[in-house]
Formats: sequence, structure tokens, C-alpha cells
Amino acid sequence: MHKITLLINCADQPNIIASVTNFMAANDGNIVYIDQHVDREQNIFFMRLECEFSSSSFSLGTFKQVFNSDLAEKFQLKWKIHSAERKPKMALFVSKYDHCLYDILGRYNSGELFLEIPFILSNHLDLKPIADSFNIPFYHVPVTKATKHDAEQEQLKLLEEHSIDFIVLARYMQIVSETLIDKFPNRIINIHHSFLPAFVGAKPYHSAYKRGVKIIGATSHYITEELDAGPIIEQDVAHVTHTFSIKDLIAKGRDLEKIVLSNAIKLHANRKVMVYNNKTIIFS
Amino acid sequence: MHKITLLINCADQPNIIASVTNFMAANDGNIVYIDQHVDREQNIFFMRLECEFSSSSFSLGTFKQVFNSDLAEKFQLKWKIHSAERKPKMALFVSKYDHCLYDILGRYNSGELFLEIPFILSNHLDLKPIADSFNIPFYHVPVTKATKHDAEQEQLKLLEEHSIDFIVLARYMQIVSETLIDKFPNRIINIHHSFLPAFVGAKPYHSAYKRGVKIIGATSHYITEELDAGPIIEQDVAHVTHTFSIKDLIAKGRDLEKIVLSNAIKLHANRKVMVYNNKTIIFS
Amino acid sequence: MHKITLLINCADQPNIIASVTNFMAANDGNIVYIDQHVDREQNIFFMRLECEFSSSSFSLGTFKQVFNSDLAEKFQLKWKIHSAERKPKMALFVSKYDHCLYDILGRYNSGELFLEIPFILSNHLDLKPIADSFNIPFYHVPVTKATKHDAEQEQLKLLEEHSIDFIVLARYMQIVSETLIDKFPNRIINIHHSFLPAFVGAKPYHSAYKRGVKIIGATSHYITEELDAGPIIEQDVAHVTHTFSIKDLIAKGRDLEKIVLSNAIKLHANRKVMVYNNKTIIFS
Amino acid sequence: MHKITLLINCADQPNIIASVTNFMAANDGNIVYIDQHVDREQNIFFMRLECEFSSSSFSLGTFKQVFNSDLAEKFQLKWKIHSAERKPKMALFVSKYDHCLYDILGRYNSGELFLEIPFILSNHLDLKPIADSFNIPFYHVPVTKATKHDAEQEQLKLLEEHSIDFIVLARYMQIVSETLIDKFPNRIINIHHSFLPAFVGAKPYHSAYKRGVKIIGATSHYITEELDAGPIIEQDVAHVTHTFSIKDLIAKGRDLEKIVLSNAIKLHANRKVMVYNNKTIIFS
Repeated sequence: MHKITLLINCADQPNIIASVTNFMAANDGNIVYIDQHVDREQNIFFMRLECEFSSSSFSLGTFKQVFNSDLAEKFQLKWKIHSAERKPKMALFVSKYDHCLYDILGRYNSGELFLEIPFILSNHLDLKPIADSFNIPFYHVPVTKATKHDAEQEQLKLLEEHSIDFIVLARYMQIVSETLIDKFPNRIINIHHSFLPAFVGAKPYHSAYKRGVKIIGATSHYITEELDAGPIIEQDVAHVTHTFSIKDLIAKGRDLEKIVLSNAIKLHANRKVMVYNNKTIIFS
Repeated sequence: MHKITLLINCADQPNIIASVTNFMAANDGNIVYIDQHVDREQNIFFMRLECEFSSSSFSLGTFKQVFNSDLAEKFQLKWKIHSAERKPKMALFVSKYDHCLYDILGRYNSGELFLEIPFILSNHLDLKPIADSFNIPFYHVPVTKATKHDAEQEQLKLLEEHSIDFIVLARYMQIVSETLIDKFPNRIINIHHSFLPAFVGAKPYHSAYKRGVKIIGATSHYITEELDAGPIIEQDVAHVTHTFSIKDLIAKGRDLEKIVLSNAIKLHANRKVMVYNNKTIIFS
Repeated sequence: MHKITLLINCADQPNIIASVTNFMAANDGNIVYIDQHVDREQNIFFMRLECEFSSSSFSLGTFKQVFNSDLAEKFQLKWKIHSAERKPKMALFVSKYDHCLYDILGRYNSGELFLEIPFILSNHLDLKPIADSFNIPFYHVPVTKATKHDAEQEQLKLLEEHSIDFIVLARYMQIVSETLIDKFPNRIINIHHSFLPAFVGAKPYHSAYKRGVKIIGATSHYITEELDAGPIIEQDVAHVTHTFSIKDLIAKGRDLEKIVLSNAIKLHANRKVMVYNNKTIIFS
Repeated sequence: MHKITLLINCADQPNIIASVTNFMAANDGNIVYIDQHVDREQNIFFMRLECEFSSSSFSLGTFKQVFNSDLAEKFQLKWKIHSAERKPKMALFVSKYDHCLYDILGRYNSGELFLEIPFILSNHLDLKPIADSFNIPFYHVPVTKATKHDAEQEQLKLLEEHSIDFIVLARYMQIVSETLIDKFPNRIINIHHSFLPAFVGAKPYHSAYKRGVKIIGATSHYITEELDAGPIIEQDVAHVTHTFSIKDLIAKGRDLEKIVLSNAIKLHANRKVMVYNNKTIIFS
């Protein structure tokens, strides 16, 4: 039994759903999940579909070829087909804060996450003991103005060697280079400690304190070249009061950050996110 | 252009999605929305689908017949097909509390609700002025032990005369009769002022106060013969503290009740709810 | 029995709490509520206190004088003393949206709000029927570029004639004049349809749609001269998904707006809000 | 400089606040925090107060004696005075689930918790490696029908040897003995994986699934002899849909459990909780 996950987007047009489902049936596939969305403003169609093939002669490579020639060209589809069994490989970038790291590794350990973590990378050594205690390789790649280029090269080498599918910045306190962003478009997940677009940039809890907001938030998003402006995957908030000091806001915020980031990781790893027009479709 | 909404459930089985989408294409329909759910415990398949037919010769009656003979029998489908243009007719039952009534009529007035309200019925006269100010017919049907049977007959008569599709109990403080429940299975929506299954029955805010809970809630559900045990459509909660008196809980709860009930009404009126096994599927 | 509510702020200093409670005891008052807050960054002390005086010879005027000479001068207090029985007078400014108006008047009618509404003012006639149905005087004061000054004069005259304590802009779609803001500092409550400081200005739901946020919000705040930048009283948010059109966001947002605004009104009317440094203290 | 935290409850009566604040002033104390609550149904007064004493001759023992003779007897106060500098000692009881343990130890490590953890105790060995990696002594005390009494004795011995102030059951899958409850009244904190009083007892996520609820929750409460019926400290909930399998509910619930339990620990450790009448007062 093979199972695939198909993600599609294209200009909205008649018969697209029936054509795709038909194609699956004609190839002896049984659709077990289908969800779709139409952006009525932009007239774009999106679909996520899971399909099972019980034939022992099923070949993913051949299937992709046929799908492309029979269907994708006709409807001008942009598409991705994932083997549902293959776990994506995630690189974890951290600096000094440990709350997101603990949260992710705790879930990883208990089998909650459908992914592999080939390595953890940090510009500092502080969190190495945590990586060690979870038996995950830890690479120390310091970044200074002088070493910036070399550090980037080392990062790229590690990412390639380990066939990394996506990167998670778990409170990684460095700007990621354009080269990296270009190599991993919509595949670098960041956690920002505010409800974006409020409080872009550094020290959002200090800004929240100063503005006197009654809710604080956290936002996970894909990194793009513009700071904190990439497609939002998940957000959550918590109520606060005038009694919260900046330190209290930071402590409360940590709880949001770790839950929001872990949720975003799950959505991405389960191929439930599509990106277009700097926004995300999150399938059920 | 005709548009229909199709709701299906049946035993889960191969090719069901492709067969239905195929059928629509073969009948010159263009599917514009599809969502599905499989209950893996019970092995039941559910689908909601919206389809447009541009042919001027399209007949809903004929389509239903063909659907039934070609598809429904083969897959042993339970199905409903609604003309998407037809607004369902909703009867509003109230007693003395006005917050849900105001909320519903405010939305009704502003065009937010896809439905018609042929009449409001109450066992008291208190809310008649509100019905009057919104120009909706108001029927006063008092219920006492002695008049119970007559009252029920009068209710049934009104419901039939106005071709009512579903009933909303907007804090209607009477037990609805079994006859009514049998005539409107999963079509009588109640609002209960607790997060069910906590605090079933009368005076839930008093019970919440006594138990010292830190959250209160409201639940909208379909009425079944067992008290407060019907399929849940929507729930929401609010945080409370030890400073809340019973009166404060009631005031805070009113805000939950009106929002939760209005949301449930919208979901039902838009045919987004399916019921099975005393639970609901809420389509997107 | 007289009951007062006292609000104080001053530089933080030793013995301030004991001195105030002592003063109340020395004047035969029984403190039934006390809450305090210290801003550790700015070193400012805030207190809210409720005190009962059972003596038949108690005079509020005399008490204020004594309080001022004995205590306020010594500690350089800024203070307000309200007779707890006196309902504040609130003017309601509206334009064309009715959801906040219905929500406020529904609560007002049911006795939930501790205040009086001497009149409703609008730059349009659309909502007059609602004011009429609740038997509240309605003044139509159109605002155009040409009539702006006259309109302001008429507003000021009405506010004075009715001894208005504070103004609520229930989706009033006009910029309030500086003169008005100066006359009612921290006494004009607005509802903004976003979680500020995100989406300042016009059409926040359109901006939220464009940015692809996963939560929307509403914020009630006091009007200051800088647009949407005044002290925040209350905020709330709701989760949304990619399936929400702008129209859906607006509908969902209405529910937030009305609850958040009504909560802010209650806090203000119950004298639970203190403002300093463009932020609010919200007492329990 | 000495700082104390005072917790009081007594029958509500005139002058109680002024008398206590007066007493502090008379003893050269400077009150830096005060909050109070009156249960109007039961007529009980509660207060929490923080007071600083700068005199080098201040003695906590003497102060307690004077407080008791001068004030406590007169007003029939029940009271506790804590030295604000002294960290309470918390014993952690666990079984096999690690999510709450990781969450607590992560916060402990980062200095977020004002407490000491002298040891972790478990009836299983599974989580020993986690205790080891955080360098906290781990005691394995298996519990079987036959060893129940001995296990209890061993627990009591450990608790006494380490001068434990309160116990946290971080998903400890054993019923705690009456002897333990009697020795630690309102000092054993449990996390129950439902929004109590819904779904008391075993397998609440299974019950939630069966009932088809749209929200799930978690509740931290003090253990009393009646199962899941003790005073509630903190609750939180999350929205779920029909698409959630039992496994999904459990995963989502873990996030609630860990945050809710950690919050309850913080409130208790900071002496912000008072218990009466099987309910809690949570001071700000």
C-alpha cells in the first residue's frame, strides 16, 4: 500500500475537482482525504488530497510523470506530491533560550512529531547539554561580522549533507542570510514573540509593556527577506494586565512561543500548509 | 445558474469521493466546494459538497431522482440536497430573557443571517415589544400543566402553517415535548448556559459558583429526549475569578450565550452541520 | 449609609497605604474594598478604595475638604472621590453600524449597566428608529466640512446641558475634535476594530485579510489626539482561518467589538480605570 | 530588610482592613502590596498583604507572637505569615508521562519558579533519565497492592526528611493515600485532564470524544478525599473539532496540562492562593 499527499494550486476553473478525483480513480487510487479552498479575490484554487494505491506495481516516479503530463499541464497546475510515509528532515537552529528547544525535543521524544531531526545548530554553546541529553548531534557555528560568510557556508554544507527539508529557528537570535532564504523558500519557520503585525523587530515585550496592551501574542511564520513580514502559519495570544512587569510578559510569552512554534512545525511536517501571495492556507 | 448543497453520509468505502464528483461532472455540474470527514472509529464517511449547474434545463427534482437511482442506492448513501438559494425558515421560541433575542434580531436585521423568521413564539408576553419593534409576528402561547397539550397543538399548527424548517430556543424556559422533538429531529437548537457536560440541568451558574470553577461556558446543541445531552454544535467559555458573584457569572454568561447561539444558528442555516451518533460534524 | 469610591495616584512612598486606611478609620469609615498597584518602573503608586460611612451627619463636601487638607497635600496625591450611588451620565455617539448600539441598549434595558444615557447623537439618521424603540432622545448632528465647527458647538452644548460625564463612540465614523478631547480627557471611549497597535487607522479588516493573520481583534481605548494611540482599556481576539473572506472577518469582528466596548463601558462607569502615562490600571 | 507575606481570613467585620494596616505601621512596617476579597454569601473576609521591615532588629518570631496576641485573637483571624525570601520546597511525583515534568524542570532550570525541588518520586523508572539530566535526586517507590502501605511510609519519610512544603502530582497515576492528604491539606496539587467538573475520573479524553464536545480542558486543583472534587486553582481550555481523534485530543490536551499545572505551581509557591469552602481565592 502506497499513500501520497498531493498539494495543488492553479487558476480557479470549472471541473478541476472532478478531473483530479477522476485521475486518481483511473489510476486505481482511493481518495481518503480531500479539502479545497478558493481565494475568491485572486481567483486561485487550492487543494490537498490524500490517496492510497494498493497495487504492488505502483511507482511514485511513474505516477508523478503521468500526473504531470495528463493533468498538470492541462490545468496549468502547480503541484507537489509527497510520499506520506517519508518523514521530513528538520534542522533546528537555536541560540541561548531553551524553552522552545525543550518543548520541541520533548514532543520529538514522545513520538508526537512526524519528522527527523538530524542535527541542532547554534551560534552559542549554552544549549549543547540539552542536545546531548536527547542524543542529537550539535554543531556550534559562531557568527560574528568577520566570520559571517564562513558561517553561512558551514550552515549550507550541513543542511546539504543531511538532506534537510526545512529549518526551524527556535529563538535563533541571528538574521538568516538571503542565500539561505533563497535555498529554502517558505521552508524556514520562525517564531516571533508578538502578535504580528504588531511589534515587528527587536524587544516586542518591551514595546507591548510601553503601549499598555491587554493581550500579548506569538506568531510563527515563514522567513522572507523582509523582517517579520513572511506568511503567518499560526498565532496565539494571552490576556495580561497592568500588573505584568516586562519580566512577567516575557515569562507568559514563553508559554505562547513554544506552543505556537510546535503547532507550526506539526502543520508544516504534515504538509498541511500552502503558501501564496505571502499568506498561508492551512488545511484541516 | 442553479447551486445545490449536498450532504452525504454512508459506510466508508473505496471510490466514494471519485464516484460522487464524477456524477456531478457527468451531469454538467461544477463543484465549487468539497469537504469530507471519515470517522475512523465507526468507519463512517461524511461529505459536504456545493455544485453549480449552468444549464437552463436543470431541474432540481429530476436531479434528485437521478442522484438517488444512480448513486445513493449503490453506495447506500443517506443524503440531503438543498437548493443553495432557498433560505430556511426558523421559528424563535423565547420566554423572558431578551439578550439572545436582541442578538439574533440585530443580526437578522443587518442581513447577517441566511434565513427567514416567520414568527416568534413565547409562553410570556414580556418580549412582545421587541418582536413588534422588529416587525415580526409574535404568538403568545402560555404553557401550564392544564394547557400543556393544547399549547403543544397550537405550536405544531403554527410550525406547520409557516413551513418551519428548524426551531431555535433562545432561552425558552420550558421543556419541549417529545412530539415536537420527533417532528423536528436534530432541528431544534437550544442554548444551555454551561460548558456541557458540566452542570446539566437548572441553575448552572449557581452550580459553577458553588464548585468554584475558573471558567464558565455556554453550549448550543440539538434537543433530544435526554435533558442537555443532545449533539453539541458549538461551545465557548470565558475566564472568571473568585471575585465573580453569581450575578456576575450570569452577566458574563449572557455574552457567551448570545454569541454561541447565533453561531450555531448560522452553521445550521448554512447547512454546515451533520449529526450522527449524537455528535456533530461541522463543515468549514 | 454613604458609600464612596476613592481613586488615588502619587509617587510611591512609605506608609501611604496605612495613612489612607488610617484616615478612613479616623473619619468613622469602614473600608469594604481596597486594591493597589505600584508601577516599579516609574515608581508611581495607585489605589482604589471603597469606604462606607454610616453616620447620618456625613457630608461628602466636608469629607473631600478634610481629605484634601489632611492627606492629599501631605502625600502630593492626585485623587478623585465618587459617591458610589451616583450613576455617571454617558452620551452615545453613533453613525450607521447598529451592532454596538443594540448591545449597549440591550444591557442598559436589562439593568446591567450602572449609568444613565441622556441621549444618543449621530451624524446620520439611520439609527434613530433604534433610539426611539428604546425611548432615548436622539439628536441628529450632521458633520460636513462646511458645518464642522457648528456641529462641534452643538455637540458641546448638548454635552453640557445634560451634564455628561463621559462619551462612548459606538462605531462613530467621525474624527472627534481636539476641543472635545480637551474637555473630556480620558473620558471618551472608542472601539477600534483591530488588536491595537496592529492595523491602526481605516479598514483594519481589509489590512488583516491582506496580511493573512490568524487572529483578529478589537480594542477599546480612550481617545487622544494621536489616532488610535490612546490608553487601552480592553482587548479581545478571535481565531480566524484562510477561509474567512473580508466580509466574514467583519462579521466575526462585530461580535468582538460589541463585547469589548460594553466591557470597557462597565469598567469606566464603575470607576475601575485609572490612566497614567498613556496606559490604564484596571482594578478588580 | 525583611519582607513578609501575610494571608488572613476571618468573619467579615468593620475596621478589619484599617486595623491590620495600622498594626503594620505601628510595627515600623511599610505595606507594599495589599489585596482583599469578601465572600458576600458566606460573609468571610480574605486578605493578602506584603510588608517590608527595614529595622535590623526585626525578628520574625517576635513579630508573629505580637501579631497573634494583638490582632489575631481580637478579630478571630486565621492567618499565615511567610518570610518572602524563603523558597518553598516542592516534591514532584510522576509516573510515565513526561510532558509536565519537562515543562516544570525547564522553568525550574531557567529560574522562573520561586521554589526548590529536593527530589522527584515515581512508581516507575521511566523518567529517571530526565531527573538525572537535570541533576535532581530521583526516588523509585513502586506501588502495588501488596506494597501499598510500605510505599506510603517511604513517601512520608522522604517528605519529612526533605522538609517538603507541598507536593505536585505531575500526571502521577496513583491514588494518593488519605494519610498523605491529611498531612498535606490543600498542599497537594494535581492536574486533571478535563475542565472539571466535566469528565471526572479516568480517561476524560475518551469521554470527551464520545460526548462530542467542541472544547477540551485541563484543571489543576488541590487533592481532597473525594476524587477530582478538590478546590480548583487554575483551568484552561482549547477548541477542538470533529476531526480530532482521541489521540489528537490527548496531544492537544498535553499542551493545556503542562501550562495549567505550571501556572498553579507558581500561584501556590508565591503564596497567592487561599482555600475555603472547597474553593480558592487567587490573589493578583
